[in-house]
Amino acid sequence: MASVSLVEDLSARIRELEEELSREKAKERSGRPLIQKMSAEVLDTNPYSRLMALKRMGIVKDYEQIRTFTVAVVGVGGVGSVTAEMLTRCGIGKLLLFDYDKVELANMNRLFFQPYQAGLSKVQAAEHTLRNINPDVQFEVHNYNITTLDNFQHFMDRISNGALEEGKPVDLVLSCVDNFEARMAINTACNELGQIWMESGVSENAVSGHIQLMKPGETACFACAPPLVVAANIDERTLKREGVCAASLPTTMGVVAGILVQNVLKYLLNFGTVSFYLGYNAMQDFFPTMAMKPNPNCDDKNCRKQQEEYKRKEAAHPKQEVIVEEEEIIHEDNEWGIELVSEVSEEELKAASGPIPDLPEGITVAYTIPSKENELPAAETVEDLEQSLEELMAKMRNI
Amino acid sequence: MASVSLVEDLSARIRELEEELSREKAKERSGRPLIQKMSAEVLDTNPYSRLMALKRMGIVKDYEQIRTFTVAVVGVGGVGSVTAEMLTRCGIGKLLLFDYDKVELANMNRLFFQPYQAGLSKVQAAEHTLRNINPDVQFEVHNYNITTLDNFQHFMDRISNGALEEGKPVDLVLSCVDNFEARMAINTACNELGQIWMESGVSENAVSGHIQLMKPGETACFACAPPLVVAANIDERTLKREGVCAASLPTTMGVVAGILVQNVLKYLLNFGTVSFYLGYNAMQDFFPTMAMKPNPNCDDKNCRKQQEEYKRKEAAHPKQEVIVEEEEIIHEDNEWGIELVSEVSEEELKAASGPIPDLPEGITVAYTIPSKENELPAAETVEDLEQSLEELMAKMRNI
Repeated sequence: MASVSLVEDLSARIRELEEELSREKAKERSGRPLIQKMSAEVLDTNPYSRLMALKRMGIVKDYEQIRTFTVAVVGVGGVGSVTAEMLTRCGIGKLLLFDYDKVELANMNRLFFQPYQAGLSKVQAAEHTLRNINPDVQFEVHNYNITTLDNFQHFMDRISNGALEEGKPVDLVLSCVDNFEARMAINTACNELGQIWMESGVSENAVSGHIQLMKPGETACFACAPPLVVAANIDERTLKREGVCAASLPTTMGVVAGILVQNVLKYLLNFGTVSFYLGYNAMQDFFPTMAMKPNPNCDDKNCRKQQEEYKRKEAAHPKQEVIVEEEEIIHEDNEWGIELVSEVSEEELKAASGPIPDLPEGITVAYTIPSKENELPAAETVEDLEQSLEELMAKMRNI
Repeated sequence: MASVSLVEDLSARIRELEEELSREKAKERSGRPLIQKMSAEVLDTNPYSRLMALKRMGIVKDYEQIRTFTVAVVGVGGVGSVTAEMLTRCGIGKLLLFDYDKVELANMNRLFFQPYQAGLSKVQAAEHTLRNINPDVQFEVHNYNITTLDNFQHFMDRISNGALEEGKPVDLVLSCVDNFEARMAINTACNELGQIWMESGVSENAVSGHIQLMKPGETACFACAPPLVVAANIDERTLKREGVCAASLPTTMGVVAGILVQNVLKYLLNFGTVSFYLGYNAMQDFFPTMAMKPNPNCDDKNCRKQQEEYKRKEAAHPKQEVIVEEEEIIHEDNEWGIELVSEVSEEELKAASGPIPDLPEGITVAYTIPSKENELPAAETVEDLEQSLEELMAKMRNI
């Protein structure tokens, strides 16, 4: 038998511990209460005041509209996680996140994830952090690889039906993946569905990146231009096993996420000029822009179908689109029918390419041209590609 | 009297709660163990593998050197907090943080701080998060306003002596402040100490920003060119009281922090081209670069002294610096002696300016020219300034 005072002491200790635990949990979990209506009121407690100020500043007409949009982010790594955080802080209506990877300490050289999250799935960890940051945003996360057959069907279904109003398609798909296969899967899905999307990428040497807006039928799709591969026919597991990994920097990935979400905001909220392609070369602080027309002979039949549809619409309502149509340069000897509209000179593009790294056999630079027969030199960067599409075409014809 | 089994139950509950509490605390506080030596080994548990890969990629010769550098970040807001996080994740040796503000929910539209931190001082909250992210970095934080007399002296002392090796100056000072007075204080300190620093800024309409490298005596200082003010003679408290606040976006601030830290890495680790000035206009995705020579008639006597010293050094070791000297354009009718070397045309600069917001009386756009006698129109942006320095000089002569 024990004394009453002992029981009282133990009970007091339990209450003490429970209180401390609830304080500790509150720190992380209850960020702030829900906000039903965005307000422009200038209060320290209003998380939307500086966004709503965009209206008074004459930048955005109707900022509140942001709450009606749904964006799917595929890949929640160095670029995708920051992209999701920016959209969350801007008060987007709903985010769909797709990734099948786990957080590792090896990811700590980029923004967003923290060491205590190592081992958690990226989508779960991201959802937890993002809900704390802005509980007004709706989240739907999928912890799977979109490139397997079943998952691809489910992915197609969710981007077709996963908007705020279930049954409606998302407003935009953002590709923040790090491999060719996943980019091709997104491209295939968006061509079939006529879904507008944006592509993003960072080179394996960490010092360049790009974003690209894809409008099926109107702009080049990912299959229209010769494919750009991160590591030809080698998956990341192999890379790791061989003791080789891509370089990455929080700076480059932060800039790419920043210009990506800026383009998303301009597209959704209708301000400024939406870029079709914006590159970032960190070595020279050079930012090339361009627009690319679709390839009439694209391998993707849905891309060709969308092109036909776009032409029909254009014929019915001419002069809808301005930017791609303007300053058109036709490369007459280009049998792929791809047209580049570059706003920079060839010299500028040439000056912008970084050094070509010395890599082990089988590993190539990000966005290099895969050589089926190993007949092409391994290291050609995207800048080389942009520099001279004709040259590239000539080489491919010879394969 | 109570039963033994009750005491056992209570004790078990206490153990359970203690375990849960320690797990909860561990989540936040013990991010990862210290790492004595940076390694390039490709392991999921190595937070430096993707940074050390910059060496194999041929970008950086000696990445480990990052651990020997100390950087001071003044202002831990939308740009400064992300700047500090990027440097922390890159494994910088030591960070000094200066800010006197508290975290507010109104800051949640930018990256880094989270709602549960509202009410904490920015430097404390930042130190806590950054230590969890990378315990290898040393932190020194100062929760004060650098512009008051005593604090300014202490600030001068810490940038002169606060390096990893106490008594040595920091390697770089980064200005991430949001007001004219603080920028001028940093400028005064760095001119007196001959301390190299970088300036950053984001406009009040949230859609443009810039970074600038300042080398006392070699480049224009903040007092050389006509001052650029956030809100002329009105402090932020007044702005808030009147129900007016500046707009801000996580995208623009993320991009500015990204290009700032990229410039820091290029400067410290000696790769790529370090930019003297890099602007970002989000409306047009336009990124002007330029370099500015110091004004021989600068109001700051220490700037003039540093100019003399630089000239003496230049005469002793000619051809040390290339970029500022190259492509020099002399504006002959410019009595301030300021020389602009712009890599963009006037048309491009003109095209890059966003709309001028409709603001209440007394409030002007970021980086406008303060009018002493209210004789100048209130809304002239930095783009206008860059566009035509001569025009501006003519106006100032007329005052």
